Amino acid sequence: MVSAVPSLIGLDWGSTSLRAWLIGPEGIVLDERKADKGASALSGHGAFLAAFDDVAGAWRTAHADLPVLACGMVGSAHGWLDVPYLRCPAGAAALAAGLRGPDGGPHIVPGVLFDDTSLPPDVMRGEETQVAGALHLHETLRTSSCIVLPGTHSKWAQVCDERIVRFATHMTGELYAVLREHSVLGRLMPEDAPVDPDAFVQGVDAARDHGELGLPHQMFAARSLGVTGKLPHEMLADYLSGLLIGHELRAGLQWRAMAGLGSRPLALVGAPQLCARYQVALHRFGRPADLVLDNTAPAGLFALAREAGLLPLEKR
Amino acid sequence: MVSAVPSLIGLDWGSTSLRAWLIGPEGIVLDERKADKGASALSGHGAFLAAFDDVAGAWRTAHADLPVLACGMVGSAHGWLDVPYLRCPAGAAALAAGLRGPDGGPHIVPGVLFDDTSLPPDVMRGEETQVAGALHLHETLRTSSCIVLPGTHSKWAQVCDERIVRFATHMTGELYAVLREHSVLGRLMPEDAPVDPDAFVQGVDAARDHGELGLPHQMFAARSLGVTGKLPHEMLADYLSGLLIGHELRAGLQWRAMAGLGSRPLALVGAPQLCARYQVALHRFGRPADLVLDNTAPAGLFALAREAGLLPLEKR
Repeated sequence: MVSAVPSLIGLDWGSTSLRAWLIGPEGIVLDERKADKGASALSGHGAFLAAFDDVAGAWRTAHADLPVLACGMVGSAHGWLDVPYLRCPAGAAALAAGLRGPDGGPHIVPGVLFDDTSLPPDVMRGEETQVAGALHLHETLRTSSCIVLPGTHSKWAQVCDERIVRFATHMTGELYAVLREHSVLGRLMPEDAPVDPDAFVQGVDAARDHGELGLPHQMFAARSLGVTGKLPHEMLADYLSGLLIGHELRAGLQWRAMAGLGSRPLALVGAPQLCARYQVALHRFGRPADLVLDNTAPAGLFALAREAGLLPLEKR
Repeated sequence: MVSAVPSLIGLDWGSTSLRAWLIGPEGIVLDERKADKGASALSGHGAFLAAFDDVAGAWRTAHADLPVLACGMVGSAHGWLDVPYLRCPAGAAALAAGLRGPDGGPHIVPGVLFDDTSLPPDVMRGEETQVAGALHLHETLRTSSCIVLPGTHSKWAQVCDERIVRFATHMTGELYAVLREHSVLGRLMPEDAPVDPDAFVQGVDAARDHGELGLPHQMFAARSLGVTGKLPHEMLADYLSGLLIGHELRAGLQWRAMAGLGSRPLALVGAPQLCARYQVALHRFGRPADLVLDNTAPAGLFALAREAGLLPLEKR
């Protein structure tokens, strides 16, 4: 625990997990806690209040009157309080103005809705705060950039003038999980296989070079390569991972280029191991990320709290 | 039951189901039985023998010395007998020459392997017999055609000079099932929603018009359209079905065109309800199927038995 005066308690309260940070000047993390109390497992004001007290109560007692900011699915219709989505373009000022909070609970950052074309709408809750954090930390991303947040539901966000102007969700992580656990593809994959970078790259390259054959076809190779003995069974899971991430990059990089952002900075934000996978894949596509950032949610919560005027004035 | 002299007992013995036909002259079906005894639920010679006797024993007693032909996963490494794959190009003569049978069991048709390029290999077991049946029934398909067999694992087969020269598997049906049952997408879908043709067509059109955005992205619309109230929850399952089938068609039709078969006959073979879905989708792509055929496995088993010389000579 770093010794400094805390400015803020920040929460990233997702569907399945809850992370809390004691945050100091300029968004520095002084202390961290995790709890197995995702929003989807909780129901009713009392349950959320108890989880909130469990994860942040000690900090709130030790540091009276600290502001508390939360982001994520805690602000969804099935969360603690349904905080209305903010429409794109969405920047820090609008996000700060959209904060809502339940009685006795944290201020909750609104999610963001993209819905201004003939395409289906898209939604995010939590990632808008990570984008705000990336912009807070890196000036180079503010004018125009593409920020990629890999995960269960990866988000690709286009930033223009410090605002999210457009974004797209890719269900890559969840697709991998359900195929591995519930489809015929998982049957050949041993549970304890070590990570195989070669197999991963083979999958990425298959998506890059032959993606037009379609993902529903190409994924069958994660079985046929095993059945025919062309790839050891221990390599099949990473082949599938590479194939799925490759399809995400294939579509995402084209989407980014179509928006005229092909030469603008590209940043990866998220868990280091997953970002490393995406960076390897981006290299295979000839377009490595310019920045690879660990979780920027604490920085984002700090930036939004400051924007909302919740921090002591000397911190501004 | 049609009254005619039986020529053959035919079995389509897949992973999860077993269908048996008493087959008369020219492949006509005289009687049919089904059993819940898929190859993946059986283990060991005795278990297969008992299932075989259960489904076909009465016919074999009533009509002594009838030949029996089986196709499907019964011939896989986890089936009754591991019958080696036949490599493309694969026609009736080669399939007939590749028949193998366990003691006291049926002759089993070999599956087919496509493996002559730098792409991953592909495999089929059972569909080769349906293709043989389609060719037996329809002369127009024999010179060159594309035969599409929708299903859990759809197969697209290119036929040239009565032989399968190339094929591709698309895991469309399984993908739909695992996404509906095990992913976040299924949560908004009521179980008893009626079929919604409009939602299906919307999904097909999304794949046709914006498929370059990628399936892992586009499938998220089956959630975001529901969350934002743009599509009633009862329509989401058919939207997803249309999107997945649309992605299969997008890739399959391009693959077919690349092979120079764009102007050659296109046939759909399989369960009528599923084929109807594919035909609607093909219409949205401006390329309806020339033929839509119900299960052609009985005709294929008949054609292969005749090719193998298993039928009484007067049937030739």
